[in-house]
Amino acid sequence: MPYERDNILRLRAYVPGEQPAPGQAAGLIKLNTNENPYPPAPEVLKAIGLVDGESLRRYPPPTAPACRQAAAQLHGLSVDQVIFTNGGDELLRLAVTVFCRPRDADGTAGGGGLGVAHPGYSLYPILGDIQDTPVTRVPLTPEFALPNDFADRLNASGCGLAIVVNPHAPSGRLETIGQLEGLAKRLQGVLLVDEAYVDFAAHDALALLEPDRGLNNVLLLRTLSKGYSLAGLRCGYGLGHPDLIASLDKARDSYNTNVIGQAAATAALRHRDQAAVTWQKVIQERQRLSDELRRRQYHVYASQSNFLLVRPASDARTIYESLKAQGILVRYFDEDPLRDKLRITIGTSQENDCLLAGLDRL
Amino acid sequence: MPYERDNILRLRAYVPGEQPAPGQAAGLIKLNTNENPYPPAPEVLKAIGLVDGESLRRYPPPTAPACRQAAAQLHGLSVDQVIFTNGGDELLRLAVTVFCRPRDADGTAGGGGLGVAHPGYSLYPILGDIQDTPVTRVPLTPEFALPNDFADRLNASGCGLAIVVNPHAPSGRLETIGQLEGLAKRLQGVLLVDEAYVDFAAHDALALLEPDRGLNNVLLLRTLSKGYSLAGLRCGYGLGHPDLIASLDKARDSYNTNVIGQAAATAALRHRDQAAVTWQKVIQERQRLSDELRRRQYHVYASQSNFLLVRPASDARTIYESLKAQGILVRYFDEDPLRDKLRITIGTSQENDCLLAGLDRL
Repeated sequence: MPYERDNILRLRAYVPGEQPAPGQAAGLIKLNTNENPYPPAPEVLKAIGLVDGESLRRYPPPTAPACRQAAAQLHGLSVDQVIFTNGGDELLRLAVTVFCRPRDADGTAGGGGLGVAHPGYSLYPILGDIQDTPVTRVPLTPEFALPNDFADRLNASGCGLAIVVNPHAPSGRLETIGQLEGLAKRLQGVLLVDEAYVDFAAHDALALLEPDRGLNNVLLLRTLSKGYSLAGLRCGYGLGHPDLIASLDKARDSYNTNVIGQAAATAALRHRDQAAVTWQKVIQERQRLSDELRRRQYHVYASQSNFLLVRPASDARTIYESLKAQGILVRYFDEDPLRDKLRITIGTSQENDCLLAGLDRL
Repeated sequence: MPYERDNILRLRAYVPGEQPAPGQAAGLIKLNTNENPYPPAPEVLKAIGLVDGESLRRYPPPTAPACRQAAAQLHGLSVDQVIFTNGGDELLRLAVTVFCRPRDADGTAGGGGLGVAHPGYSLYPILGDIQDTPVTRVPLTPEFALPNDFADRLNASGCGLAIVVNPHAPSGRLETIGQLEGLAKRLQGVLLVDEAYVDFAAHDALALLEPDRGLNNVLLLRTLSKGYSLAGLRCGYGLGHPDLIASLDKARDSYNTNVIGQAAATAALRHRDQAAVTWQKVIQERQRLSDELRRRQYHVYASQSNFLLVRPASDARTIYESLKAQGILVRYFDEDPLRDKLRITIGTSQENDCLLAGLDRL
């Protein structure tokens, strides 16, 4: 008899984009996991270099006060509106742990489920499955917009938590503040807006946290993995009402973040302007790559992120595999409605040129 | 109405030992959180220095293959018997997530609870509370030994997971392999042996994983926080039957460990002999400090760990507070049966001298 819970036994675990080991990455053009193509800021590397053996030897400050202070200052919030996490992924898991209720032993659901839009970041429903909470998937429109009845459908199925990624992945579409505000107002549960890609977008959703809006059910997710070129260190944070943050904080692993990540994140947020230079380059390349791909008869979805979702005129999987054979990794999702599309991370201009040349060789 | 689950609302979160911020630690004698008093090994610091901006920018290898290979080689196991985690704490949480079943909405428990010995690492029952699984606490004997009916009592309450820390915290007592084997054989659920302090002990429990013992329900927890002086980087791992490891792996955050931690842990395990030099020093100091404290009329429990549990002749809390006022931190637990005791981490011989002088000043 297996020892694990039935839901874990049945679980199909999340499959991340291919991550070649450091030694095997040389020569690859890696445009499949939405990393920033530029290295971390000089001030960040300097802060990392200052972490000494004495700091490594000791447990890190459990609540990461310096990082939270830096984030609070950057966003004009109070420190108790910030939780620092082991990548944005940890914030997602904590939200599911805290706000979503597992099914009863007989499989019946008593409310408190997870609501997501489909397609989206495929990890969300898997986190629901790990918690054994019912997951309500609502299809997006063909242009990847939230349908008007999104909140109603989630309320009808008793969701305790909705997760919406904005800018959307894998399309790059950006919803307006008004749309998100309307959604938060109508939802009976918590709205988590995953802003993993917000550094490349025209606006963020911080306005939802303004006290006079009266929204106490909104959480924003931020990560330093994309905009700040720190995916390797696992740094993310959540912003929201102090009561929501306090609940998440109770469920956190005692020492959830590492001391080098804390030092790097603090420096990164304090020197945001250094990272912002790279965001401008990515945004410029996004425009250039969009134009070039459209010229090659690809349908390119308007993106406010650091990737493009494109629909080629010929079979997408074949293109994905042919590129891979050339040492160019992009992301292919073998599921509807993405089967005929590719998601391409914006690289350096040189990497993007290689991609275009690779496509032209097909 | 609060948004969080009832069990989270009720939860009393774990309180770690005091961790002064890096800038405030100067001058403190910190003997309260069982860190190794010596810095990480030279080869570890070298490996950390080699991590470049390119590695920071990218997501880390999700399954930490180099670390798992190093651990497998060190312990004579196969790679699929190893899971690498964000500190030992993550392994504990994963085990509760995977093997323990939450209560039904009406509060009834359908089995699959968590069994722990009391006292122990106070995080264990809190992890059970976060999962909303029933927690069975079985008192240890006055000498902190497992009672003979431990397995029977856990089976009777339907535990899916038992966590036993060995060497025991906070006493330092070491159980024999025979006792642990008997326990694993009798338990209907999984036995997780938390070997956080094993580097300072006369034996470990690896023998339980030998195939001819036929135990497929045993997990061992290891951490690099104590023995390897890497608490700041959050590196731990689990060892066990490949089926158990595969189950835990499904519930892991996709990128649970950071790239610098992976580099450091790999180097630390490959150069274990460098850390082992510090273990010998700690063991020598443990003997010296025990002798000195006994001479001062303290009852000192025999410890196979890097700390001592001691029972002073006068009020323990007063001593804790007086030491703190002198800048010497030890750990006081305000709960039975620990209220009249102190837990003191073994420091360098200079730190231990300061502690003794501090006690002599009281």
